[in-house]
Amino acid sequence: MPDRFSYQELFAAGVPETPPGKTRHARYDFAVAYPNPDTLPLDGLADAVRSVLSREGRDLAYYTDPGGYPELRRLVAERLARSRNMTVDPDGGLVLTGGSGEAISMVIQALTDPGDTVLTEEFLYLGTLRSLHRYQANVVGVKCDESGIIPEELDSTIQRLKAEGRRVKYLYTIPTFQNPLGWTMTLERRRQTLEITRRHGVPVFEDDCYIDLRFEGEDVVSFHSLDDTGQVIYVGSFSKTIAPGMRMGYLAAPPEVISRAWAFKMGGAVNHFAALTIAEYVKHGGLEQHVQEQNESLRVKRDAMLASLGENFGNAATWTRPEGGLYIWLTLPEGANLEAIQEQAFQEGVGYYSGTQFSPDGRGQNSARLCFGYPTPEENYQGIAELAQILERHGVIN
Amino acid sequence: MPDRFSYQELFAAGVPETPPGKTRHARYDFAVAYPNPDTLPLDGLADAVRSVLSREGRDLAYYTDPGGYPELRRLVAERLARSRNMTVDPDGGLVLTGGSGEAISMVIQALTDPGDTVLTEEFLYLGTLRSLHRYQANVVGVKCDESGIIPEELDSTIQRLKAEGRRVKYLYTIPTFQNPLGWTMTLERRRQTLEITRRHGVPVFEDDCYIDLRFEGEDVVSFHSLDDTGQVIYVGSFSKTIAPGMRMGYLAAPPEVISRAWAFKMGGAVNHFAALTIAEYVKHGGLEQHVQEQNESLRVKRDAMLASLGENFGNAATWTRPEGGLYIWLTLPEGANLEAIQEQAFQEGVGYYSGTQFSPDGRGQNSARLCFGYPTPEENYQGIAELAQILERHGVIN
Repeated sequence: MPDRFSYQELFAAGVPETPPGKTRHARYDFAVAYPNPDTLPLDGLADAVRSVLSREGRDLAYYTDPGGYPELRRLVAERLARSRNMTVDPDGGLVLTGGSGEAISMVIQALTDPGDTVLTEEFLYLGTLRSLHRYQANVVGVKCDESGIIPEELDSTIQRLKAEGRRVKYLYTIPTFQNPLGWTMTLERRRQTLEITRRHGVPVFEDDCYIDLRFEGEDVVSFHSLDDTGQVIYVGSFSKTIAPGMRMGYLAAPPEVISRAWAFKMGGAVNHFAALTIAEYVKHGGLEQHVQEQNESLRVKRDAMLASLGENFGNAATWTRPEGGLYIWLTLPEGANLEAIQEQAFQEGVGYYSGTQFSPDGRGQNSARLCFGYPTPEENYQGIAELAQILERHGVIN
Repeated sequence: MPDRFSYQELFAAGVPETPPGKTRHARYDFAVAYPNPDTLPLDGLADAVRSVLSREGRDLAYYTDPGGYPELRRLVAERLARSRNMTVDPDGGLVLTGGSGEAISMVIQALTDPGDTVLTEEFLYLGTLRSLHRYQANVVGVKCDESGIIPEELDSTIQRLKAEGRRVKYLYTIPTFQNPLGWTMTLERRRQTLEITRRHGVPVFEDDCYIDLRFEGEDVVSFHSLDDTGQVIYVGSFSKTIAPGMRMGYLAAPPEVISRAWAFKMGGAVNHFAALTIAEYVKHGGLEQHVQEQNESLRVKRDAMLASLGENFGNAATWTRPEGGLYIWLTLPEGANLEAIQEQAFQEGVGYYSGTQFSPDGRGQNSARLCFGYPTPEENYQGIAELAQILERHGVIN
């Protein structure tokens, strides 16, 4: 056997080992944020592929416009105008990205030097938190209640940080059906948040990827449509309305932000095959009806989980009651440790992520995110009962 | 009007403005490296979508294994074993990426600190060159002839750089149907290159994205299959065999390299919709026949361009005669300037990229890359005649 070639001295400084890993599933999987597999628009997509390939398939031979298929950009801008009252220029103010995750990573890289401070909600989407840490941001979570970020906390946090000489770069927020907390920020809170951040020269980075998943209550207008100064950077996605496997997101931002974020785009334009298919599907009107069906299904799933939480946890815990999205946030009394029992619970059949995984500073041991979108209603009901039994068995709840 | 919000103080240090831009086409487009749009397997892909979605479409609701659809990884490993005599572990030694471009950018980030030296052929793929510059590599082109990198030049270049105290990190090469030069490195040269780099502890980063586009002559074995020490990092792609718009590439490398490169993966796993479709298409045996048809078409296109070069340039220039791939490299006498006339030629109907755009140090004014894959044979013939006329009209050739 020849000696193995050694790369030890060749790796760039500080690059962590990050093997791709594998996805694993508990019998009752409340851990990973899948949408509903029963309502995927598979026939609609297959039809769309055939018709768009016969008409525009030759374009697959091109490397398309770097910003992504112009027709899909136009359709996204039109839909944002119609459903979100947003004014977005599909040429110059909007680009397509590999899911919202790619957009988020690009914006973070464009705006973050090591040591810069980034404000977030006190618990936030794992992918964003990981990206912020990778680019060495100082992530500061701002205290929230069920109406969203608490304005006084936001103002005093920024003031304190500035007094400490910190560079506060932006506020990242998921204002609607927040991941992992489940609530939606009220209009009043959004106005206050915008006013406070504007006063401090801090842009708002709005991640609106759950906006279409409302199954009760009324939409709240987006930060982006409340602002006409260019202070808001906006990302959205088709992952939750069509499928995550399509990897199709979008970034709407002032041109000067896009042109910096674009410096970090890898591998050319977004997948053109997926973009063609989605555009065709949207144009033929399939999307709005599909979203409605999906949301009816999500409501039933949420209700099954809420019912089981009431019956099995009763006064032993509190939880959020989301009007949409995919997440319920479970909170046990102080001192309970859902982080320590997580792997054991997985082995015994119930997967979830403890609150600590979403926290910039490792708080939230007594909380967990429960995703209700993927399992069936029956599984949601049964799985929560199982979870209560597991936690009782191991003395986490009484 | 409210004041515009200013991002000026917020951008990370040194991020260039990189607006996504637009693709533009000359009447005769020899500039951009498109494959043949007439032989795209559109029906095969549409059929594949329908059958795979009806069977495995639910998986679109998952975020798949981060390394990409396991079945497609298995098929890629099997095909590399069969056609390239390569031993690759589909679990741990192979990951799917958004085209080869994403893989190249990830590997560059994993292995390059600012100021590190990277060796390349004296002219190289624009995307790789841009990525190397973005991560502040010191790019050093090694002199080549029609058999590939010249071994003595490689050895003396590494020795000189080491004597200067430079850290030589890796050699990036496109050994087969080199972009932009068109030649294929001989087996003897590959053996010598491997021996020299191994002696100096320098890994070989082999970009094999044109390997399937051979329309005459015999395959030369890959660097990867000549090595059993882990010294070779290998990227390939379906862009040239199926379509660039599928954005599907792959990286085969030792696990320790993959786990570092993966730290730079953005936006989750590769597009699962495209991966499912390609796997289904490959499994049903469509690919090999398609590649054969495509290559027959490419040969006709090359021949049309070669014939027109002979008739219209005669003794005024020299050019390569590739046995596959997409590129002919045109060289005029020293002093001729194809860079200065490029925009004018585009306006007058013929697009190409001058040699300087592929050079780490801006050489190659008197050369140009001519892509013969996208236009029809007639357009190749006519476009080269037009090019000769344009160059004569402006005094670049007599």
